[in-house]
Amino acid sequence: MIKAGIIGATAYTSLELIKILLRHPEIDLSYLGIRREGGFKISDIFPVLTNRLDMHCSRMDKDDVPIGVDMAFVTLPPVIAMQYVPALLNAGIRVVDLSADYRFQDKSIYEKWYKAKHTDPSNLDNATYGLPEIFREKIKKADLVANPGCYPTSAIIGLAPLISNGYIQTDDIIIDAKSGISGSGREPKEGTQYCERNENIEAYNVGVHRHTPEIKNILSLIGKSDTNVYFTPHLIPMNRGILCTTYVKTRKKSSGKEIIAIYNDYYSKEPFVRVKKDDKLPGTKDVVGTNFCEIAIRVVDERVIILSTIDNLIKGAAGQAVQNMNIMYGFEETLGLLY
Amino acid sequence: MIKAGIIGATAYTSLELIKILLRHPEIDLSYLGIRREGGFKISDIFPVLTNRLDMHCSRMDKDDVPIGVDMAFVTLPPVIAMQYVPALLNAGIRVVDLSADYRFQDKSIYEKWYKAKHTDPSNLDNATYGLPEIFREKIKKADLVANPGCYPTSAIIGLAPLISNGYIQTDDIIIDAKSGISGSGREPKEGTQYCERNENIEAYNVGVHRHTPEIKNILSLIGKSDTNVYFTPHLIPMNRGILCTTYVKTRKKSSGKEIIAIYNDYYSKEPFVRVKKDDKLPGTKDVVGTNFCEIAIRVVDERVIILSTIDNLIKGAAGQAVQNMNIMYGFEETLGLLY
Amino acid sequence: MIKAGIIGATAYTSLELIKILLRHPEIDLSYLGIRREGGFKISDIFPVLTNRLDMHCSRMDKDDVPIGVDMAFVTLPPVIAMQYVPALLNAGIRVVDLSADYRFQDKSIYEKWYKAKHTDPSNLDNATYGLPEIFREKIKKADLVANPGCYPTSAIIGLAPLISNGYIQTDDIIIDAKSGISGSGREPKEGTQYCERNENIEAYNVGVHRHTPEIKNILSLIGKSDTNVYFTPHLIPMNRGILCTTYVKTRKKSSGKEIIAIYNDYYSKEPFVRVKKDDKLPGTKDVVGTNFCEIAIRVVDERVIILSTIDNLIKGAAGQAVQNMNIMYGFEETLGLLY
Amino acid sequence: MIKAGIIGATAYTSLELIKILLRHPEIDLSYLGIRREGGFKISDIFPVLTNRLDMHCSRMDKDDVPIGVDMAFVTLPPVIAMQYVPALLNAGIRVVDLSADYRFQDKSIYEKWYKAKHTDPSNLDNATYGLPEIFREKIKKADLVANPGCYPTSAIIGLAPLISNGYIQTDDIIIDAKSGISGSGREPKEGTQYCERNENIEAYNVGVHRHTPEIKNILSLIGKSDTNVYFTPHLIPMNRGILCTTYVKTRKKSSGKEIIAIYNDYYSKEPFVRVKKDDKLPGTKDVVGTNFCEIAIRVVDERVIILSTIDNLIKGAAGQAVQNMNIMYGFEETLGLLY
Repeated sequence: MIKAGIIGATAYTSLELIKILLRHPEIDLSYLGIRREGGFKISDIFPVLTNRLDMHCSRMDKDDVPIGVDMAFVTLPPVIAMQYVPALLNAGIRVVDLSADYRFQDKSIYEKWYKAKHTDPSNLDNATYGLPEIFREKIKKADLVANPGCYPTSAIIGLAPLISNGYIQTDDIIIDAKSGISGSGREPKEGTQYCERNENIEAYNVGVHRHTPEIKNILSLIGKSDTNVYFTPHLIPMNRGILCTTYVKTRKKSSGKEIIAIYNDYYSKEPFVRVKKDDKLPGTKDVVGTNFCEIAIRVVDERVIILSTIDNLIKGAAGQAVQNMNIMYGFEETLGLLY
Repeated sequence: MIKAGIIGATAYTSLELIKILLRHPEIDLSYLGIRREGGFKISDIFPVLTNRLDMHCSRMDKDDVPIGVDMAFVTLPPVIAMQYVPALLNAGIRVVDLSADYRFQDKSIYEKWYKAKHTDPSNLDNATYGLPEIFREKIKKADLVANPGCYPTSAIIGLAPLISNGYIQTDDIIIDAKSGISGSGREPKEGTQYCERNENIEAYNVGVHRHTPEIKNILSLIGKSDTNVYFTPHLIPMNRGILCTTYVKTRKKSSGKEIIAIYNDYYSKEPFVRVKKDDKLPGTKDVVGTNFCEIAIRVVDERVIILSTIDNLIKGAAGQAVQNMNIMYGFEETLGLLY
Repeated sequence: MIKAGIIGATAYTSLELIKILLRHPEIDLSYLGIRREGGFKISDIFPVLTNRLDMHCSRMDKDDVPIGVDMAFVTLPPVIAMQYVPALLNAGIRVVDLSADYRFQDKSIYEKWYKAKHTDPSNLDNATYGLPEIFREKIKKADLVANPGCYPTSAIIGLAPLISNGYIQTDDIIIDAKSGISGSGREPKEGTQYCERNENIEAYNVGVHRHTPEIKNILSLIGKSDTNVYFTPHLIPMNRGILCTTYVKTRKKSSGKEIIAIYNDYYSKEPFVRVKKDDKLPGTKDVVGTNFCEIAIRVVDERVIILSTIDNLIKGAAGQAVQNMNIMYGFEETLGLLY
Repeated sequence: MIKAGIIGATAYTSLELIKILLRHPEIDLSYLGIRREGGFKISDIFPVLTNRLDMHCSRMDKDDVPIGVDMAFVTLPPVIAMQYVPALLNAGIRVVDLSADYRFQDKSIYEKWYKAKHTDPSNLDNATYGLPEIFREKIKKADLVANPGCYPTSAIIGLAPLISNGYIQTDDIIIDAKSGISGSGREPKEGTQYCERNENIEAYNVGVHRHTPEIKNILSLIGKSDTNVYFTPHLIPMNRGILCTTYVKTRKKSSGKEIIAIYNDYYSKEPFVRVKKDDKLPGTKDVVGTNFCEIAIRVVDERVIILSTIDNLIKGAAGQAVQNMNIMYGFEETLGLLY
């Protein structure tokens, strides 16, 4: 049994992590850290956990190291996470960090988009981007995994098969993304009030969302060439789920059949990617509550349109974090994630 | 043309008031007052008003009197409203106050439930409770109308026909109320975040909601005897609408037909009350966006079950306020309210 | 390993059953029966199951017996279910029936409310009402369990502690219930169209809902005296979840503390009942996706108000069915149900 | 006063038409036609109209002509509408047709996409496409107006300023559209059941939606050159509203300021188009219930991203139909539409 801790225990993502870890046969969830005054039980914050996990949350400073913990999921916000991670790594605790702080090997990109100085640049080289479908081999050996953002997970899994073999033009990829509201976190804000979001759809951060450089960066790595994306996120009235509708152009004309064959081939061994069959299109309701990503492809005139869906809190966060941990520890990759 | 002002212009209720007043043929909406720093346009707060009403909001202190205004809708919170109303009345401005501050003639009830000293007791005698179906004659002559709460409007209209003629037992009335989220106001709170309310139903303030004494009080006046109510409000995932399911016992056994006849008779001349026909039950979607209250009655064994629906922001607030104003000024009662 | 089948595999309830059974360590889900033409895979109906359970559905006539199956969950509609159950029992297959067909020992009540002749009266005596909190001992030995309705589950668990010890008056119990839309099933109907239900709340079948006699019946058994209930169900705009707000009168005046102590005591060993602490009230979001029932109690003047919540598809159907199966086979009662 | 009829009175669109016409000072709504057996009142279908319009619906065959009607709104489905329109026109009744049957001057396009022979080709030349912002002068003189589709209204108003002056490349326009569910009509379908659409987003008819040729066609007319669009509609969980996110490339590099100036200029006199200011983006909640279209523009790298919102039932159907009628009869264009 691996002893695991969660640092940043009161985030929506942490609730999903807890639910997964409680059913994981190889994990003993033994620590819940928070930044502020503790003393309360996690089930006070998330009543759904009552009688399931009534563990107390412990206040933790950035240099604190939870005792007896083998690995930690860090669910702190960006900029804060990198203040806590170094002490954990120094103490030999393996880390899956769900913030953006270790997703960019080039810290200048991070610093530009997150408007903060990177305070732990030395660990950037040790960090692996935790998208198992692409970086599984590196994750196996990693002590620090940078868990991908929710939008990047959905967008990159949708594009990887066509990018990796140079099939498409990479200077003009359009990703039109739609997300449920839980992606905005638990903090009360005017913009996430019920009456502001219900019966409403709105784009936000058009062209300036922080996931833009993350997507560009990883696609460039996969395709081994500079990639430019136009990324437009929208908030829609539902709790969970992301749909990316992605528009690309192939280098040479291809039929839908050929392209679907590429996807089926590329993902044939992936436990959490499902390429839709026949004329089916993916709806978020068929992935919400699961760690799956579903994909459909349509060829229309000169363009390929890719539809990819995930649960932003599972495959886009907590589920993928556990998938990464399973890989890091050599467990069956689906352990705790098929339910 | 009557020159009207709204004091407390940035509330959800005020937006509905503005929309109604813009189409009211006898009203010139000429003033928007707010408590804090002004300088912005109301359409900055409510973009739906862009090009419809781009009027600036004016900062207003409690002794300020807007110049040239004939009547004012006060949409300030309780306790605050009564600080602003006296100066208005002194300046000869007629007032429809949408707070609770003038709803109780007995200030001790108010002070107990609102946990504040009443600072304008002398005007309580001048105030009329603004439920037109019951107090129309008094409203005609009033300079200060206390616009009813949303729950009381729905509950009292549902009960009045049976209370007024001593038909039912009044010591054990059960009102189970369900409301959309807009009743909670625009202020960001954890409890009104989208992900907390969506896919969720929850009771709140069971037995201690401030609308309890208001309902008791008015029912006692209508029935001319002490009345006790058990009032349980619930929040359900929709923007607008209230349904009250009310359980009473008649003093002597009556058929559904007899009771429906009482309702049809009682409300036969009311422009905004609709008693459902045949086997129809009211759904909030059929009153949302209107000033109507819909009612159905069922007799089951020893009990009468009353279902009454309103739009909490219209008949439960802004629409009723305009209905009151129409009555105060001798306008057609439905003016501006049938759309 | 027990080999289990589901008969009526395309219901919403069956999807939940499948999801639970797939993670149940003692169950091998080996058969999916349907009434109409088969040939398709269950994952064609429920795409969420793709790669998880791509089993074919088998057409089944009422006398058919699936080969090699030890126990069956029957999720057919009422009146249909009792046509299939006898052959199963005759073949030695233990049955958890989720229809209403075996919930009434007195077939005249069933025939009155379900407007159909009971075609399998001889098995009524063999059937046990499958509410584990009340009938656990009988369920252990049962070959035929009548799984309770969703509303009765929520209402009865809320009332049992006060009914069982004669604490309350039983002739005038008011149950005001609110349910998500999934309770209405998968069949397309005008009344369950998105635009009819969204932003809407409506009561239905007031005083005539078929769950009324079921609740009365079981409460009378528990309290050993005739019980009358006024049951008013409402549909609210969410997928899943039931909240019952129940109004009763105690025989002698009691404080909230005393009554909560009764509940805590009564349910102290129940794995799936949680009595809320302090001033907390239950929201459906904290039980949806789980097999828990949450309860809070308030004493207001002369009345006790009970709030009880469940997930209508889990504790109100599929989860409770598995809980019953666990009891029937002597498994840990929570097996497959804590996730 | 113009006497108006609605033919196809039970559609969602017709309810909106009725609500608008009831407040229109120049219109006497005097006829409600339906295809099937009549005899019921429109308020039986739409209870919200009770006491507002309790008019009976009249059964109408395709050659019937309602007596005394000056103009008719036809809200019948495509292919059906063109069976009813000729008799109306022959009787001198001016028609606003909300189906697709008169939107294409080239009937071969219609026949290909609507999979039906056009049965009234002779009236195609007389029909004017009813988008006032583009074809106002023609609408003034038209006896037959083909009211635009909801998606085309939103998309074309978003694109017209850049198309009309040759500013953008027209061979590769991407329109990613999101719509509320009411666009799917009132007919019960599995795909529009509450539980299928709630908490779900899904694309549909990717590349093959019938509004594709309509958008292409009108854009080609406006831009006087062949235009190709990639149009992807999505259904999102809300009743009303459309947001189009449109991606285009300018022929020469332009700043956001320049492009916004083009929009402000192009729409400076339009009563129902609002170009958002500063950093604001349009949300559907700010146009739902109104006849407005709101637009924002962002320039990102090589692309211009256009966000345009409407209420699909108002500006996308009933409101625009009344706007067209106002133009046809020389009324103030906003009459009945500012509320």
